Amino acid sequence: MNNRLLATLTNQTTDSIPIWLMRQAGRYLPEYRAVRATKPDFMSFCKTPELCCEVTLQPLERYALDAAILFSDILTIPDAMNLGLNFVANEGPVFNAPLRNESQIRSLQMPDIEHDLDYVTQTIKLIKKALNNQLPLIGFSGSPWTLACYMVEGQSSKTFSIIKSMLYSRPELLQHLLQLLSESVIAYLKMQIQAGVDTIMLFDTWGGILTTRAYHDFSLKWMQHIVHALKTDPSLKQVPVILFTKNGAQWAESIAATGCAGLGLDWTWDISAVRKQLSYKVTLQGNMDPSILFGSPELIQQEVQRIMTSLGADKSQFIFNLGHGIQPGTPPENVAAMVEAVRKYGKLS
Amino acid sequence: MNNRLLATLTNQTTDSIPIWLMRQAGRYLPEYRAVRATKPDFMSFCKTPELCCEVTLQPLERYALDAAILFSDILTIPDAMNLGLNFVANEGPVFNAPLRNESQIRSLQMPDIEHDLDYVTQTIKLIKKALNNQLPLIGFSGSPWTLACYMVEGQSSKTFSIIKSMLYSRPELLQHLLQLLSESVIAYLKMQIQAGVDTIMLFDTWGGILTTRAYHDFSLKWMQHIVHALKTDPSLKQVPVILFTKNGAQWAESIAATGCAGLGLDWTWDISAVRKQLSYKVTLQGNMDPSILFGSPELIQQEVQRIMTSLGADKSQFIFNLGHGIQPGTPPENVAAMVEAVRKYGKLS
Repeated sequence: MNNRLLATLTNQTTDSIPIWLMRQAGRYLPEYRAVRATKPDFMSFCKTPELCCEVTLQPLERYALDAAILFSDILTIPDAMNLGLNFVANEGPVFNAPLRNESQIRSLQMPDIEHDLDYVTQTIKLIKKALNNQLPLIGFSGSPWTLACYMVEGQSSKTFSIIKSMLYSRPELLQHLLQLLSESVIAYLKMQIQAGVDTIMLFDTWGGILTTRAYHDFSLKWMQHIVHALKTDPSLKQVPVILFTKNGAQWAESIAATGCAGLGLDWTWDISAVRKQLSYKVTLQGNMDPSILFGSPELIQQEVQRIMTSLGADKSQFIFNLGHGIQPGTPPENVAAMVEAVRKYGKLS
Repeated sequence: MNNRLLATLTNQTTDSIPIWLMRQAGRYLPEYRAVRATKPDFMSFCKTPELCCEVTLQPLERYALDAAILFSDILTIPDAMNLGLNFVANEGPVFNAPLRNESQIRSLQMPDIEHDLDYVTQTIKLIKKALNNQLPLIGFSGSPWTLACYMVEGQSSKTFSIIKSMLYSRPELLQHLLQLLSESVIAYLKMQIQAGVDTIMLFDTWGGILTTRAYHDFSLKWMQHIVHALKTDPSLKQVPVILFTKNGAQWAESIAATGCAGLGLDWTWDISAVRKQLSYKVTLQGNMDPSILFGSPELIQQEVQRIMTSLGADKSQFIFNLGHGIQPGTPPENVAAMVEAVRKYGKLS
């Protein structure tokens, strides 16, 4: 197997800085849009293992990437809790039944992960078979805090004032919800690991809207709980976990202290600053601005080189990625230029 | 005059930590909504000096705040450039004629500030007369980068991919626009100072979406140019300038180096970390999470106390504020609890 990603996450030597991309299977690819068009309802698409497997593999046909990532959505767990999830064009996810009062939250039950999310297991098995041990597969989940944001607000928000109002006025009620979500995420990720994923990423899309104290109490605490649960389950294959809090680099030291193997960074920080702060405690992952992919191939190569240079002499324990998901409209040929530049400037031996 | 704000910005002693609030005149106040309802079109409201003066004064009737802030919008300059600005309910500002190609940008002219934005001068004069030298008045502008974001995108955006695409593919064209906007902002702020404002704040709402390098080249550079121009004009009364880049605390050191008197901080950083980094080079302003105002009065008092404690023994050169604008729906009585707590815990002598 191409071991670059796993070797880098576990501090073993490898020949090149690995590269994969958040949303590498996605709307910027015409072949993705073609398959996606066959199933207009997005959650129905996510629940069709053959199609999810097909689009997972698409970017690997085009680019020499070092990992596949399960094609799915971060909201599969709330969907399985029957909150009425829909995807509205240009607006993103919308829940018909957001959690707005105590009785809704207290009566919420963990989904029957094995049954309700079996489509994810089936998808993973199909992908693993197709990958034939040539590339590692990344599984993932939304962080409990991020799932709660969508479940309480009902959709994305500029201010997240509904959930933050709950955080400040009913902290124990919100913690009850976060605990339930954490146990659900743990069961979900165990199922993904048993089905075959080789590493896990937790997407904490909305942790960065919190104060330092609230981030630690309402988001990071539960991610740490998840990392610990996965690490201490003797029945489970040990897989490295990557944590990614968007707009959260100021808390890098606390995140690294959770026991995670990797730390995802958005593009607003120089990798060199975080490396200086943390040294080689964790593997860093990131962080090119996805918008740079709208520039010329020459500019893209320069930016890749700049990130590589900023790592200093010891370029180990670094995974090249974007600082956020690749954007719709990104020219696919520019992604090729980026991958090529990572190969050119990312040699390790 | 109540000199707390100006003394704090110029490192002179005063009796209490000053407090004012971003959007202190706004939708959370029923008396604001009543006046606002008389003029449904928002820009027409902004262009009526008597009404803007009236709502500017409203929060001062309720609360013992240490400054008034001019009621206006950050998009007055692009509006005067005839890009067809409208405010759409629940969507915010929308430009009918966003800047999408080179000829649009190259043919753009500086507005005739004195004439086209005379309504701002008239508003300032009315407010100053009403304040009768009892309280200082804060003037403001959007930063050139933030104005450009709206003018190029046409509205707010999740990804700002249109302007970032321009930044990476046509940097010289974007710099041309930013220079034009900077000269316009300088002329606009000079006019505000001549009309009587006592201090200036630059709102860089969207600087925090940039990489470190792009932030310095496309946002901070032009804010520095503005600070320098205001400081070195011998015909102008010297007023302190506060810079506020949302999601920009990682660049605090560079921002402080511009020569600004004050540095605004959002709520995602502990004030203590920035104080430790910068010592007393600049006055810090912020940074309570506006969502805390949805909690109980007891919680609000605790949070105010926590921020005050985090300042350490020397609490000088600190202005209490929220980390972002006060949110619609905030209970006005909770604002009273916050102001009271600042008075209680913010004594300096």
